[in-house]
Amino acid sequence: MNLLTDKFSKLGCDNAPGQEGRQHVSEIQFRGEKIPGVPVDFSHGDVNTNAFEPTPGALEEFIAGVKRGGEVAYTEYRGSSSTREDLAGKLAKFTGAIVSADNGLIITPGSQGALFLAMGATIGRGDKVAIVQPDYFANRKLVEFFDGELIPVRMDYLGSTKDTGLDLTQLEDAFKAGARLFLFSNPNNPAGVIYSATEIRAIADLAQKYGATVIVDQLYSRLLYDGRTYTHLRAMDINPDNVITIMGPSKTESLSGYRLGVAFGSSTIIDRMEKLQAIVSLRAPGYSQAVLKTWFSEPTGWMDERITLHQAIRDDLLMKFRPVEGVKVRTTEAGSYIFPRIPELAVTTQEFIKILRLQAGVTVTPGTEFAPYLTDSFRLNFSQNHEAAIHAIERIVELIERYRK
Amino acid sequence: MNLLTDKFSKLGCDNAPGQEGRQHVSEIQFRGEKIPGVPVDFSHGDVNTNAFEPTPGALEEFIAGVKRGGEVAYTEYRGSSSTREDLAGKLAKFTGAIVSADNGLIITPGSQGALFLAMGATIGRGDKVAIVQPDYFANRKLVEFFDGELIPVRMDYLGSTKDTGLDLTQLEDAFKAGARLFLFSNPNNPAGVIYSATEIRAIADLAQKYGATVIVDQLYSRLLYDGRTYTHLRAMDINPDNVITIMGPSKTESLSGYRLGVAFGSSTIIDRMEKLQAIVSLRAPGYSQAVLKTWFSEPTGWMDERITLHQAIRDDLLMKFRPVEGVKVRTTEAGSYIFPRIPELAVTTQEFIKILRLQAGVTVTPGTEFAPYLTDSFRLNFSQNHEAAIHAIERIVELIERYRK
Repeated sequence: MNLLTDKFSKLGCDNAPGQEGRQHVSEIQFRGEKIPGVPVDFSHGDVNTNAFEPTPGALEEFIAGVKRGGEVAYTEYRGSSSTREDLAGKLAKFTGAIVSADNGLIITPGSQGALFLAMGATIGRGDKVAIVQPDYFANRKLVEFFDGELIPVRMDYLGSTKDTGLDLTQLEDAFKAGARLFLFSNPNNPAGVIYSATEIRAIADLAQKYGATVIVDQLYSRLLYDGRTYTHLRAMDINPDNVITIMGPSKTESLSGYRLGVAFGSSTIIDRMEKLQAIVSLRAPGYSQAVLKTWFSEPTGWMDERITLHQAIRDDLLMKFRPVEGVKVRTTEAGSYIFPRIPELAVTTQEFIKILRLQAGVTVTPGTEFAPYLTDSFRLNFSQNHEAAIHAIERIVELIERYRK
Repeated sequence: MNLLTDKFSKLGCDNAPGQEGRQHVSEIQFRGEKIPGVPVDFSHGDVNTNAFEPTPGALEEFIAGVKRGGEVAYTEYRGSSSTREDLAGKLAKFTGAIVSADNGLIITPGSQGALFLAMGATIGRGDKVAIVQPDYFANRKLVEFFDGELIPVRMDYLGSTKDTGLDLTQLEDAFKAGARLFLFSNPNNPAGVIYSATEIRAIADLAQKYGATVIVDQLYSRLLYDGRTYTHLRAMDINPDNVITIMGPSKTESLSGYRLGVAFGSSTIIDRMEKLQAIVSLRAPGYSQAVLKTWFSEPTGWMDERITLHQAIRDDLLMKFRPVEGVKVRTTEAGSYIFPRIPELAVTTQEFIKILRLQAGVTVTPGTEFAPYLTDSFRLNFSQNHEAAIHAIERIVELIERYRK
């Protein structure tokens, strides 16, 4: 069991978003009193009526699915064939490259499910895997769980404005060192930046040159600000059997509670993912799959309004952070995260994050979840009630001043 | 990638229940015409209005969950704490041993999810794992996926009537050979037999003697026929940190479409399972978790009626099979499976199963999914429309005669 003990010791999730309630609070020297205000949990988006509700019609589709009964409850492991037919066309149109409903698409329990299956289908023991730092916190853990060897590729998101700042030389070095799998999220989670067309083309070229597989997590690719353009890797000149794209309606569409995700692209990898899903969870929740009918079929103007509302919150929160001495934060280009770097404090960032929760009712996610060296940053999901989010940032700023070194 | 190719070649799921549509039909020499009749898919239970519907109130709890919003959509990875509080008491009462809501219980996407996490949390590369043959088809695949070494323990379910016929000497031999994990389903899936009190006590004693962990899948432990008693392993004299019990409302309660399962017992293993769930699927579908309120809180008489209805179907189907020369089938004691052995035919059982689907509109699951040597058996889930199930068995019997050697 020693191998296992070691493996699970690396899989800690007490600092992961939503797990804060399970943390043991150590001795902290508090300064001053609690600051009153509506608690805000920035570790994930708020799907309540006072913030961002699920897509109109989602619950109705679910109920209709329950009424249809068995054909919906029990689908093929890769998901309902009629839903896949419907989705394939929509996803092809959105990404600019064809999607096979029969062989190139799988519906999963959340996009986390898609990520797990895609990684499980492509990482063999000892395989070298390139991942970006910072990037979604599960990426590193997945490589470790499947006994892969992690090769980090840096992204200097604060040092760049015209692209993400991905170090393409490091990426090529990873491929040269033997990595045959590259995983990244676009827009980047947590930094909220979009890979430029040049970067995506360079990634495609390198993958093609080294025969590498690329898994790209495009969970937030519909929530783009300031009219920005987005380049889909799968539409580039790259072997389509070497690309898996992951999406899902959980974030922009606030459908997290239904646990839905999709992966599409390489039929070879999708086949393996289905075999794995058969032992992991059988299938995405049957009745929930019916909700996918609403995806990419939202009422006219609904998505535009949602983007406008998020952009307005982004602007207000950034305006609160920007004047604070020592805070550095890049403008979010897509998605609903901001990822500020904070000045040196009299307490560690880990302690400060607990202080935020206990003295200000504000929950954020430590930067170290996304890259081990980001001890001076935290992530906020600003898909929240606008007013409450602004006041929560004011409390964060007040506590930064109170604990400043 | 060779290790991986090998691993996934063992993970085939084309013959798994529900996957029949993906099979390639090879050349079969059909005898005679198709037999008309209402198609019946015995690979899983039928949750439609004309068969067995979900627990009353389930959809209402789901809808109430959606209305409550974020607190339901985003729970701790191990599941909503209030739902765990509620369940812990009910499960302790049902199984006769205490359950810790805080540390000893996790809610998963289906009981398949619980099984995957429990096995992932306890099997290290190269570990020897004892499993029963026949048993649930995923058990073998899980051991192989996690690079464990499988030690089969035979169950002679047709040779016994007073117990399951598990070979306890083989089980002890497996422990002597170094197995420190034993996985079994009770009632057995596919044989539908309940482990006797003597057998459960013997398993507990052996596990205790060798310090082995036991994972017991009790998915069907509420659906007992003929007033039979059921012995819960976790209530025996055994180190509670070495036992994980898996259940779920998907079968007896026809709630499969919501994808819910639970695992409870060892806090050490539950802790690991939560860490794993954090990268596998984050959590069981949030809104679905709300449906667990109805579990073990069904309307008075509802469960008794459900058992009576299933028992009546069982009796009628067995009556159809029993007179057929060469068919051997044991009376189901719990759950909704019957698992007949059929006589030698002019075609292989694999071919016969395809013939059943194509000539009679009847879907069953081959015995080889449950034990490699059971080439002469198939499994039927009789949680179906009573009338349609009877006629489907008549068609099976007619085809057995038509293809008899």
